Amino acid sequence: MRIFIAGMDGYLGWSLAQYLTRRKHEVAGADLFLRRKWVEEMGSWSAIPIATMNERLTAFKQSFGREARFWEGDLRDYGLVERIFREFEPDAVIHVGECPSAPYSMMDVRHATFVQTNNIVSTFNLLFAIRDIRPQAHLLKLGTMGEYGTPNLDIPEGFFEVEFRGRRDRVPFPRQPGSFYHLSKVHGSNNVMFACKIWGIRATDVMQGVVFGTRFPGMDEDERFLTRLDFDEAFGTAINRFACQAVIGHPLTPFGKGHQKRGFLPLQDSMQCLTLALENPPKPGEYRVFNQFEEVYDLTQLALKVQSAAGELGLDVDVHNVENPRQELEDHDYRPDHQHLLDLGYVPTRDIDAEIRTMLRDLITYSERIELKRDALVPKIRWTGQHQKVSFIEPVFNRQGK
Amino acid sequence: MRIFIAGMDGYLGWSLAQYLTRRKHEVAGADLFLRRKWVEEMGSWSAIPIATMNERLTAFKQSFGREARFWEGDLRDYGLVERIFREFEPDAVIHVGECPSAPYSMMDVRHATFVQTNNIVSTFNLLFAIRDIRPQAHLLKLGTMGEYGTPNLDIPEGFFEVEFRGRRDRVPFPRQPGSFYHLSKVHGSNNVMFACKIWGIRATDVMQGVVFGTRFPGMDEDERFLTRLDFDEAFGTAINRFACQAVIGHPLTPFGKGHQKRGFLPLQDSMQCLTLALENPPKPGEYRVFNQFEEVYDLTQLALKVQSAAGELGLDVDVHNVENPRQELEDHDYRPDHQHLLDLGYVPTRDIDAEIRTMLRDLITYSERIELKRDALVPKIRWTGQHQKVSFIEPVFNRQGK
Repeated sequence: MRIFIAGMDGYLGWSLAQYLTRRKHEVAGADLFLRRKWVEEMGSWSAIPIATMNERLTAFKQSFGREARFWEGDLRDYGLVERIFREFEPDAVIHVGECPSAPYSMMDVRHATFVQTNNIVSTFNLLFAIRDIRPQAHLLKLGTMGEYGTPNLDIPEGFFEVEFRGRRDRVPFPRQPGSFYHLSKVHGSNNVMFACKIWGIRATDVMQGVVFGTRFPGMDEDERFLTRLDFDEAFGTAINRFACQAVIGHPLTPFGKGHQKRGFLPLQDSMQCLTLALENPPKPGEYRVFNQFEEVYDLTQLALKVQSAAGELGLDVDVHNVENPRQELEDHDYRPDHQHLLDLGYVPTRDIDAEIRTMLRDLITYSERIELKRDALVPKIRWTGQHQKVSFIEPVFNRQGK
Repeated sequence: MRIFIAGMDGYLGWSLAQYLTRRKHEVAGADLFLRRKWVEEMGSWSAIPIATMNERLTAFKQSFGREARFWEGDLRDYGLVERIFREFEPDAVIHVGECPSAPYSMMDVRHATFVQTNNIVSTFNLLFAIRDIRPQAHLLKLGTMGEYGTPNLDIPEGFFEVEFRGRRDRVPFPRQPGSFYHLSKVHGSNNVMFACKIWGIRATDVMQGVVFGTRFPGMDEDERFLTRLDFDEAFGTAINRFACQAVIGHPLTPFGKGHQKRGFLPLQDSMQCLTLALENPPKPGEYRVFNQFEEVYDLTQLALKVQSAAGELGLDVDVHNVENPRQELEDHDYRPDHQHLLDLGYVPTRDIDAEIRTMLRDLITYSERIELKRDALVPKIRWTGQHQKVSFIEPVFNRQGK
């Protein structure tokens, strides 16, 4: 199958290019390298040094014996998207080219505007190009479990049947996301759902949990295949950040009470799930939603897992909560469904501790790079609009005091 | 109260400037005159000739004995919004500056992108300016009943309490709008709801029905006070279009079966309701939703009403359905609540037939202007993306054959 990766230079994009090629698909991609610039703007860089796209493409050709086509350009430019569709004729399009950061979207009006317009316009361009050039192509759009927020209801996969004043209907589950970034994903989901309905486009909207990990098996054969791993406050996600903190002896810093629950999955499970979705496309006109994660943990549980795995590697680190820069429920029930991907054959890795150990071993090699950007580990972007470093707060956990 | 009108040159904006001033409020406004350009782009113009903003502002000063401050500029420019907020220090902001057309948003990728980004960015700029400069200011945002779509459920005002798998919560009512324009309003609603939650902003989100009518009492004292009245396929709304068709003897053209139900209200009721919302602001942090319409009709009922009122004025017109250029349910139940505004004291006009007669009498004066742009009355923009004039279809209604 010919698969176009929108955002091929990113954490997931570059991983997908390799993973899908090993699965015998033909991939092509586009990127404007904005992720590299955003992380630089945050005063940080990838913990794992990454190759340039030229180096990556050379490694790709050497390893797989064929080229991956690549366009450097802006997915907000419909002319570019149109050209790519005509030249590559994709059977599927995976959109991992959105700006993925909640804190980045909350910095100020300029960043909020950028994140929402960037994400909406790139998705529009892919939808219209599918409609007009490749109407059978399957759009796999990366959303986030954060689209749902944390309501006091079980969270189904996209839709639920509801009774209200004696009438029943199957309707979209209400979304109550927690940042302008998460809202951009909701806007995108709404646009895609509508496009499927009126144009008969087929789409999968993946409500992905928090992905963590440095690799999947085989990725390390050539260091040019390594993917980025961010630890700054805006582009680093919980476990990845904890792991980076651990290898430089920085306390692990859950936000607030640290009882916030989220769904998590290792990078290799994300690859497995996205591939399953691509290889089992929906019917024309079908808009389907997959909740994609392996298990639910709260932030403190994760910090303790990282602390414990670090301990096994001789790294002694504290868990020390910091002020929560976000506004979010810190105590809540969380019971999202995640059956659709299991039905398609998803086999979860199940060993999050082993994944964390692998990640820590990888990151120890690069601890100096993390140390150099230590400041980026501490959140400054607050949901109030203030920019001010968060402070440590009680409760304090350490290895003795769980 | 100092009220800033974002979009003061529009159908509602210019009406509000007068109406609110008569209520002793101090108004100021901004506009980039895009509505005039959009209608021109559709090959049309306002049925009622309208004065320039300079002429309008002169008439305003002559009638009310004071200036209305006005900024010509783009609400997507945060610098402008910031300057307005610092100079005018509004107590309330009414946002009627969005692009309000479903067909316009469905033309092509460029128009879809324009409508959504224009509407999102202008709303963001107002939200951030309120947060940073006038945190007590009340944001009254014009949404649309179309945000809800036509689910097989009663439609509450914004929120409903739902039980799912034994748990209960009050959550936003699911939105299933029918165009990229309507989706832009949903995106805006979601952004505003979130801003209220995290920043303590107070906002009223008005899910307005279809407004019709040429005037409210007093508006005709000076023709420079007249507001625009569009009849083209993109910016004309149902009753206004029917009335313009009637005065030139063009058949009235409900789309498809013509059983689509919507909520409607006369222009003077829209003024009354918006003023009630402004004069009874929500509490800080409160995000409230008003469904704003007087009565529900289907399109055929309305066409027959216009036909009948036209007949009284000696205008003999047919009702002749045309292909539906949209994709929408043509047979559906429709039971939206609309209690909140009644609770605040809204007294509906109740005589839609008299309103239609007034409108027809006004429009007869300008029938030549409508005749000159007769082509603009026939829809060409289809939800499929095709641009092709719709044809007449069965069933045919005429004055004898109801």
